[in-house]
This record gives sequence, C-alpha cells and structure tokens, in this order.
Amino acid sequence: MHPVVEPGQLRRADPSRSSRLERSLRAREGGVLDDAGFRAWLADRRRAQCQEVRRVPLTSMDRWGFAHETGNLGHVSGRFFTVEGIHVTTDCGPVREWAQPIINQPEIGILGIAVREIDGVLHCLVQAKYEPGNVNGVQLSPTVQATRSNYTRVHGGAEVPYLPLFREAEPSRVLADVLQSEQGAWFYRKRNRNMVVEVGDDVEAGEDFCWLTLGQLLDLLREDDLVSMDARTVLSCLPYGGGEGEGPTPFAEALRRSRRAEEGGLHTTTEVLSWITGMHARHELLARRIPLCAVADWKRTDYEIAHVEGRYFKVVAVDVVANSREVSSWQQPLLEPVGTGIAALLVREFHGVLHVLVNAHVEPGYLDTVELAPTVQATPANYAHVPAGHRPRFLDLVLDPDPAKVRFDTVLSEEGGRFLHARTRYLVVEDESVPAQAPPGFHWLTAHQLAELLQHSHYINVQARTLFACLLAA
Amino acid sequence: MHPVVEPGQLRRADPSRSSRLERSLRAREGGVLDDAGFRAWLADRRRAQCQEVRRVPLTSMDRWGFAHETGNLGHVSGRFFTVEGIHVTTDCGPVREWAQPIINQPEIGILGIAVREIDGVLHCLVQAKYEPGNVNGVQLSPTVQATRSNYTRVHGGAEVPYLPLFREAEPSRVLADVLQSEQGAWFYRKRNRNMVVEVGDDVEAGEDFCWLTLGQLLDLLREDDLVSMDARTVLSCLPYGGGEGEGPTPFAEALRRSRRAEEGGLHTTTEVLSWITGMHARHELLARRIPLCAVADWKRTDYEIAHVEGRYFKVVAVDVVANSREVSSWQQPLLEPVGTGIAALLVREFHGVLHVLVNAHVEPGYLDTVELAPTVQATPANYAHVPAGHRPRFLDLVLDPDPAKVRFDTVLSEEGGRFLHARTRYLVVEDESVPAQAPPGFHWLTAHQLAELLQHSHYINVQARTLFACLLAA
Repeated sequence: MHPVVEPGQLRRADPSRSSRLERSLRAREGGVLDDAGFRAWLADRRRAQCQEVRRVPLTSMDRWGFAHETGNLGHVSGRFFTVEGIHVTTDCGPVREWAQPIINQPEIGILGIAVREIDGVLHCLVQAKYEPGNVNGVQLSPTVQATRSNYTRVHGGAEVPYLPLFREAEPSRVLADVLQSEQGAWFYRKRNRNMVVEVGDDVEAGEDFCWLTLGQLLDLLREDDLVSMDARTVLSCLPYGGGEGEGPTPFAEALRRSRRAEEGGLHTTTEVLSWITGMHARHELLARRIPLCAVADWKRTDYEIAHVEGRYFKVVAVDVVANSREVSSWQQPLLEPVGTGIAALLVREFHGVLHVLVNAHVEPGYLDTVELAPTVQATPANYAHVPAGHRPRFLDLVLDPDPAKVRFDTVLSEEGGRFLHARTRYLVVEDESVPAQAPPGFHWLTAHQLAELLQHSHYINVQARTLFACLLAA
Repeated sequence: MHPVVEPGQLRRADPSRSSRLERSLRAREGGVLDDAGFRAWLADRRRAQCQEVRRVPLTSMDRWGFAHETGNLGHVSGRFFTVEGIHVTTDCGPVREWAQPIINQPEIGILGIAVREIDGVLHCLVQAKYEPGNVNGVQLSPTVQATRSNYTRVHGGAEVPYLPLFREAEPSRVLADVLQSEQGAWFYRKRNRNMVVEVGDDVEAGEDFCWLTLGQLLDLLREDDLVSMDARTVLSCLPYGGGEGEGPTPFAEALRRSRRAEEGGLHTTTEVLSWITGMHARHELLARRIPLCAVADWKRTDYEIAHVEGRYFKVVAVDVVANSREVSSWQQPLLEPVGTGIAALLVREFHGVLHVLVNAHVEPGYLDTVELAPTVQATPANYAHVPAGHRPRFLDLVLDPDPAKVRFDTVLSEEGGRFLHARTRYLVVEDESVPAQAPPGFHWLTAHQLAELLQHSHYINVQARTLFACLLAA
C-alpha cells in the first residue's frame, strides 16, 4: 500500500500514481489469476448464478404500477426509477420536435472499483454479476454498483458488500471520483458517481469477486459482452498519465505520444474548452417532462410500450428469479432497444500523435444539453427511414470499414439492470481521410485531452467513455 | 500581438501566457490612461450617459405583461426573460420547502473582455456602462455584455459594438471561454459565456470604452460600486499562473505561493474534486417551476411582487429614458433585494501557503444543485427571524471582523440590468481560528485550485468568483 503523506505537510499530486497505473496496464498476466484461472473462476460463477428471466405483462409487476392520471410507471415506494414522458424541442438535427418515454432516476448511485497492490502491481476487484437485461447473464462489473435506493435498502435486501470502502473512503486513497452521465436518449439526467479507491491488504475477494490487473481487464474488453458498461465507465475515469517506453507498433507509439501532454496536439486545451463552450451556446434543447400517457406516437399493449412504427426502443416488464442477488425474486421494467447500436471513434495521427474525432452530441436527458460523443453514435435501424443526407455523418464509413484499419471491434452490452439486451458495436477505426480541419460539430482531441476532461463531469458521454477504455486496449 | 503558432505543427499551451498576465497584473499605472486620465474619462462618461430611471406600476410596462393563466411576467416577444415561480424541496438547510419568484432566462449570453498588448503590456477594453439598476448609474463593464436576445436584435436596437470579436474569435486568440452560473437564488439556470479574447492593434477604444491594465482594474475593484459584476466574473476566469518574485508582505507572499501548484496544499486536486462529488451526491434539491400566481406567501400589488413579511426581494418595474443605449427608452422588471448582502472569504495560511475556505452551497437556480460559495454568503436581514443556531456558520465572525485582519472590504453592485440596487459587501478576512480540518460542508482550497476550477463550468459561484478577483487585488 502506498505510504500516507506525513501529517502537517502540504500535499501534492502523487507523482508515482500514473506509473503505478501504467505498470498495471502493462501486466497482461495477473498476480492472482492467470488466464486459465480466470476462465475457471468465471465459468464457476456463471454456473452458480442462475437467474431465470421471463417477460411478463406490464400490469403484472408486483409493487410496480401505472399512476392513474399520468400513466407514469413507478414503484410503490416512490424510489428506484419511473418511466415517464418527455417532450423535446431543439434547434439542431433533422428532427426538431418529438416526445418519447424516458427513465427518470434522479438519485446519484455509486459505481466503484476497489484497487489493491498485489506483488507490487495494482489489481482491480471485479465482480461477476448477473443482470436481468444481459444477453449472457453474468458480466464483469465494478466492485460496487449501488443506487441510492440500494444502499439505503429500500428493497429490504442484504447489505451491499464493500460499499463502506467507497462511502467512507479516506480522501488520500481516492484515485477517481466523478459524476458522469449515462445514456441521454434513455435516461433523464441520470448520473452515477464513478469511483476508484485504493484499499489495503485486509480487503479480500469474496465469492463473486476476483482481482485482475488493468491489463487483464483491457484484454477482456475485446471479448463480446464480457466487461460491463459500469466497469467500462469507471475504468475510463482513472487518472492515466502518459504511456512509458516506445510503442511496439506505429499505432501504439502514436497512442503513447497522444497520452503525453508535452507532445502537444492540433488544438490546445484552452481551445478545446472554448469549442465545447461554443457548442453549448449554439445548441438549444428544451426537454420538458410530460405524463407518459401524453406521449404521442407511442402506445401501450399488455407486454410493451412501443413506438407505433416499432422504432427506437420498447418498455417491457420482466420477472426475475435469482439465487445470488440482494433479494431472491422480483419484477421490474426494462428498456429494450430496437437493433444493435454502433459507437465508433475515427482516429488518425497528426505529426506522430494520435487524435480522436469527437462529436458534440445533443441528447434530451443530458443535464446540460451537449456532451462529447464518439464520431458516430447511432442505431442504424433507426435511420432506415431517414433521407441519405440526414444520416449521421461518417455512419456509412464505419459500417463497412477497411479491416486493415480497424483497431478495435467488439460488441458490448449496456447496463443490464435497466436495459434488456442492449448491445452496441464499439469500433476504433484509423482513417486518414478526415482533415485536420474537422467538420462543424466535430473536433480532434488527443488521448491526453480526453483523459483530462474525464476528471470532470458531463464532458464525455458514456459511449465515448467506453471507447476511451477500448482505445487503451487497442 | 503574440505570434501565431506555425501551421502544420502541433501546439501546446502558450508558456508565456501567465507571465504576460502577471505583467499586466503588476502594471498599476496604465500605458494608456494614468489615474488622473481615467478619472477624467469616467467623469466625462458619467456626464454623457444620463439615464432617468423611475418606478412605474407593474402593469404599465410597454410590451411586458402578466400571462393570463400563470401570472408569469414576460415580454411580448417571448424573449429576454420571464419572472416565474419555483417550488423547492431539499434535504439540507434550516428551511426544507418553499416557493418563490425567480427570473427565468434560459438563453446563454456573452460577457467578453477584449485584451490587447499596448507597449508590451496587456490592457483590457472596459466599457463605461449605465445600467438602470445601478445605484450610481455608470460602472466599469466588460467590452461586450450581450444576451442572445441582444445580439439577435429582438429589440430592434443598434448592433452591439465589438461583438464579432467574440462571436468570430480565432481559437488561438481565446484566453478564457467558459459558461458560468449567476445568482442561483434569483436566476433559474442562468449562464453566461465568460470570454477573454486577445485582439490586434486595429481594435481601438470607442467613445464609452477605455484600455486599462489588469493591475489598474484590480485597484479600482477596491472602490465601492465601480467594477461591475459582469466585469468581475470575466476577470476571475483568466488563466492566471503562479505569481512571480517575492511578495512584499507575509500575506502577499502566502498568496503568491498559493497561486503556484508546485507549493502544494492541504488537499490534492483529486481530493478536492472528490469532496465536490461527495457534496453533489449528498444533497438533494428538487426545484420545480410553477406559475407565479401559485407562489404562496408572496403577493402582488400595483408596484411590486413582495414576500408577505417583506423578506428576500421584490419584483418591481422601472421606466428608463436613456441617451446612450441600443434603444432610447423602455420599461422593464427588476429584482430588488431587501438589504445589502454579505459575501466573505475566510483565508489563512498553512505552512506558508494561503488557503481559502469555500462552502458547498445549494441554491435552487443552479443547474446542478451545488456550487462552491464564499465561506459566508447571506443577506443578514433575511436571518433576523432565524434562531441563532440556524444562522449561517461564521456569519457573526465576518459581520464584526478584527480590522487588522481584513484584507479586502468593499461594497460592490450585482448586475444592474436585472437587479435594482443590489449591493453586496465583499470581504476577505484572515482568520487563524478555523482548523485545517474544516467543518462539514466547508473545504480549504489554494488559489491555484480555485483558478483551475474556474476554467470549468459550475464549480465556483458568482460571489466566489468576485472574491477570487478581490483576493488578487488584496
């Protein structure tokens, strides 16, 4: 464990922090579990956690119901979340006005990863966690994943393990602690506290938990539907420093240089911040919560609330019987997207430094209208009916990329506690065709600048946070 | 003018930026106007800009009226701002639920200061600007102060001078560009773009404008009601670096060291950010807009909308006849606070480095519930009826400070375009009685940490931004 700074002295950022993270990033073999050991542990956990999830009628959920006047779907306790309506008007994009259902979950939850030095290398305590919406049941999740309703135990379940490590963390042990948004198309102003806390030797891995290095986790990120969205967003917020040594490939070397502030970039950080401010000032979006029953073009049947043309997503209900959750059976609503999404980051080097092309994206559920998104973020199926000129820029390019230019290509799941079978194809594609002068609404950032923005709230959206982790894994 | 970086090269933060700002900070005599010249110019501008402001009945305002169903007060164009109601519930503070009128101005305006090098020293282009709510008419304002309604010319007035310098600024000439909130007790989610842009020799000072160094402006900040709120907030967002040389007094030297990251502080920046995240997670505040006519405990008479017990503020109407504004006469509502406010920063040094004690403050109009406020921010008159135990912490200490410990003490005006005779006593007081372990809700920050947070939105509230400028002037 890293020594505590002497009391009575002034403190500075720990200069060894980034090299300790770097060492863990490079440790592709763990000090606790090798690959075979991890596979055996995971298979074991998958056998142990057998949940049965089946769809049920919306009105048959115990403790969930539709409010009489508004038609909003909520829990009798008034906690957890509600499904409500939202009416949106905006001055940007091809569609300027619409209404839709949205999940309203105003509480701030905790997504926390505990890290501990084992044989001189930082290891992350990850959890094999079954979520009802996952296509494959168990995925690798943070140490703690707790809504405020969870940890105030509204549902009367068991105590969330390891939670005090985060709620009562010693400030000097906190490596990351930042509020970040989640899907602004599906959530109304949802934020979670993304935390990484260093813990001592006394913290051991419980039954559903294991210690993995950052390098192991990034390797596992390349497998479909394995590292959960919650784990990915927390990993993206770590204070990575510049990479060390020379990269083994030109791409790796350009990425390493991109992580070092001193290499510079196409734009200074002051310019990047000014561009973001300009995007906020330019775009207007008014999102007004409305009763769910007042949402035009969506209709409710026994089993789902769906768009009349079958687009976007459905709200459905599931019954879950579990053997390893806080409570053993429950029903809940889930949001089921139509089609697999795509989230792609175009990258290229300028003067030997890798740059990523981000897009200032407007989503109705964001607290502040605009966040930086991947170059392309879309559900292709939703654009089938949209005229070619209005399809998202670069979409066609990333749907059919040159395989030699693809640095990352994996289908990953979104949060299985709220979404049913929500999957996104995450791509990192090198492309030299986009000029230094990015098109309006797009901007070239270095990895260093992304990492710096990730220390603050509401700059980088959840899909771009996943892709930042993917970039480190590429 | 500073040379442009060569095209085709990667760029880094300009290393000379902070020393150029420092040189201007130290220039207490301007290269353009000395003190006598400035006084003559200001007296001249005060004579030239004679507005007549008088109170009129609320219903006699041309183009402003109360909406039939809601009682909201708005402009016929639907632009500018409205006075609406807000209903607040919160889990913190002595009062947990209330309703009040609030100004809703969702547009993002621009507050911009143009800076230009004259004889090797940066000078700020400030404007002598009459605002109807100012106690003394003309104050020193930014080069540009434009709402979106202003610059899209809803009122059909003259073009805002110098506005293109900001709207079309070359990115490499931007020194600061950040959205910042304003009074969260009076404004619902109001934000302005705080900009500083370096301009070339071709930009000259027009009739109501003059060039002053940062040092001159900070000296003028010590005069009552002279440097406007808009000028103060923009000045606070400049990327000041560490101070140079040794300070002439122990206080100045502790402040200089506080501005240097390398000196360290009681808490690392990671810890400060984590504390702020925790404050967001801890406090819940739900602010719901309601019709103005539904606000309990407030009543409307011919001349004002006021609290039944005369507390907090009034909404009044004024008629303005001017000779130097975009249009020559108009009526408008203004918010008139009851009593002079107090905003005080307790400061002390730890190990030779000055620290400031900030308070995580919840206000209903903030976009994100909590911002960092001065140690004390209150209107003493509003607390006359509150039991002693519920008076704001440290209030009594700063109402009657030891004169030997007062480093700054000036009454300054809040925005005269929206507020009538709104004045706040700004204090910086050295106090060794507060321990390193600050009370809950308070935290010790260095000047460097404050400056770093000021590069981002919604960390530091408008009163604390003023006090950061006052601290540099102290």
